[in-house]
Amino acid sequence: MIEPRKAIQDMESYSPPLEGRRGLLRLDFNENTVGCSPRVLDAINNIKEEEIAAYPEYKKFKAKLANSIKVKPGQLMITNATDEAIAVIMQAYVEKGDEIILPIPTFAMFKFYAQLAEAKIKEIPYATNLAFPTKKLLTSINKKTKLVILCNPNNPTGTLIDGKDIIKIIEKAQKTDSLVLLDEAYYQYSEIEYLNLINSYDNLIIIRTFSKVYGLGGLRLGYAASNEGIIKNLLKVASPYSVNTVAMVAASVAIDDMDYLKWYTNEVKKAKKLIYDELKKLKIKTYPTAANFLIAKFPKRADEIEAKLREREILVRNRTNYPLLKDCLRIGIGTVKQTKELLNALKEILK
Amino acid sequence: MIEPRKAIQDMESYSPPLEGRRGLLRLDFNENTVGCSPRVLDAINNIKEEEIAAYPEYKKFKAKLANSIKVKPGQLMITNATDEAIAVIMQAYVEKGDEIILPIPTFAMFKFYAQLAEAKIKEIPYATNLAFPTKKLLTSINKKTKLVILCNPNNPTGTLIDGKDIIKIIEKAQKTDSLVLLDEAYYQYSEIEYLNLINSYDNLIIIRTFSKVYGLGGLRLGYAASNEGIIKNLLKVASPYSVNTVAMVAASVAIDDMDYLKWYTNEVKKAKKLIYDELKKLKIKTYPTAANFLIAKFPKRADEIEAKLREREILVRNRTNYPLLKDCLRIGIGTVKQTKELLNALKEILK
Repeated sequence: MIEPRKAIQDMESYSPPLEGRRGLLRLDFNENTVGCSPRVLDAINNIKEEEIAAYPEYKKFKAKLANSIKVKPGQLMITNATDEAIAVIMQAYVEKGDEIILPIPTFAMFKFYAQLAEAKIKEIPYATNLAFPTKKLLTSINKKTKLVILCNPNNPTGTLIDGKDIIKIIEKAQKTDSLVLLDEAYYQYSEIEYLNLINSYDNLIIIRTFSKVYGLGGLRLGYAASNEGIIKNLLKVASPYSVNTVAMVAASVAIDDMDYLKWYTNEVKKAKKLIYDELKKLKIKTYPTAANFLIAKFPKRADEIEAKLREREILVRNRTNYPLLKDCLRIGIGTVKQTKELLNALKEILK
Repeated sequence: MIEPRKAIQDMESYSPPLEGRRGLLRLDFNENTVGCSPRVLDAINNIKEEEIAAYPEYKKFKAKLANSIKVKPGQLMITNATDEAIAVIMQAYVEKGDEIILPIPTFAMFKFYAQLAEAKIKEIPYATNLAFPTKKLLTSINKKTKLVILCNPNNPTGTLIDGKDIIKIIEKAQKTDSLVLLDEAYYQYSEIEYLNLINSYDNLIIIRTFSKVYGLGGLRLGYAASNEGIIKNLLKVASPYSVNTVAMVAASVAIDDMDYLKWYTNEVKKAKKLIYDELKKLKIKTYPTAANFLIAKFPKRADEIEAKLREREILVRNRTNYPLLKDCLRIGIGTVKQTKELLNALKEILK
């Protein structure tokens, strides 16, 4: 038996996530719980033969996306979901042994790709109240730091980082020749974004996804935005045909349908108020969120409640094994109607 | 400016391939020139909302694909086209400085990912008649060899490797603890495959694609098949959601529609006889092919002929800068009707 690389031998075997989610109330993956805009589905259902058979072409879509977020096409790399963006950033910039600063708990793929790159991962825990550990993070940045990873709002905690702190981090990182990777997967919910900072700082890369609020999780589309120098280096590493054509057809319509986006984010906003009010009445400990999910604590009952919700065809994400999140479930916030369904089920279970 | 990894600095900037191919006669990418099966298009045009919004689920499709090629699901990894398969194999097994044996000219992505892995690439040129360099290859395998790359039939030469030679290579590689990666992107045209050898040899990985004969190039789907031990290691490295749902919906129908596949490969077979006959009459030097494309030589006129075909809305691939292929075009073989169109254009240009 030929052995894989040492770094791979040390990695754990991948445990496939839950399947069979179709038809259930999906509050476990932070997806758009209604789905994509009807106009997007319509575009997919009218797609032409040649779009399927021919290799993807990126120029037009990239120009359209760049225009919609007010950057130049040269400041943009589209990717096979943000997973590929993270992978490519690490492959382009992180040498074996380089230091990566990672506030935890956070999105699992950062650590995954950092391990593949054989980086030295410096984990900085969030505060026990799940606030962002600004001071600890700032003092941890030094000349050895190649990459600082921020997720705003953070998954799974929902934490929002103060804008002034983000700038302090970028400026400190600039002094130590470190890159800052800022994941804005949920910025449409927080309504705060830092994309324009790529024009002011030469060490910032922003990544975003079409898998969440746009409801295109099945199509795998994301992007990285940065200065043209960094993007040029990232494109050297990226697979030339990693993004599929259907994803671009869909996203092209999705970014035009702002009404749908507004309707859905507004629905989540109303549902968010409702779920916090009701969980408070139920005396369930929650944490503030700036995203479309929240962390709720069920001392010694997280596994049981997750299972009982599943019996009722409602999926939530058990995060009890994550740092700081013992006994916690991450609960997605969908529409008001879906949230009422969840709350009714929870009340029944807790009774 | 923060510098990327040394290996990335040394890589050339990526030059985007030709765009604007829609509506033209595409004989340049070895695609199915008619497109996917009508049943596939129908499935895509009836796709349901939830398939777009929810994260992909792989288990069912993997079981179906495994069954269709008579391997166990554990012997299979589905990938975002074969590009991802190649990337993952390198990432899992190739350490910096490891030796990779690469017969050239061949598919460009092998070298691309080998460079990313900082491998030492030992290039073995094909013979001047474009025959496979079996002896040179066998003697080049030694204890330092981590990976031997074979492409059968080879792109862009169309060369078929003798079955006995493939086994000799695998057996020699076995003795030196080297992996053999065999790309069968065009095996439906050669009607020769070596997939069953993964049950006899523990050092063989086969990769295949849905981008070519199946006409799903826009969807990005491929797979790697090997023994369960190797697949387990590859899955540690692969991105968990790299394959999109539409690709699986399409491929699931495509593998059931064997009539379409037979019709198309038979059409290519007839067209192949026609193009060789006619190019011979035109006194154009060609090389034998086992795939749906052939190499034809146009001394000092390759650029001109490529351009003039393009004026007539026919695309072929200029390979004059590839090793051994000076003055050569790679010409795709589509249907008989398309081939007649190409030949008429060529006759006009050569007149």
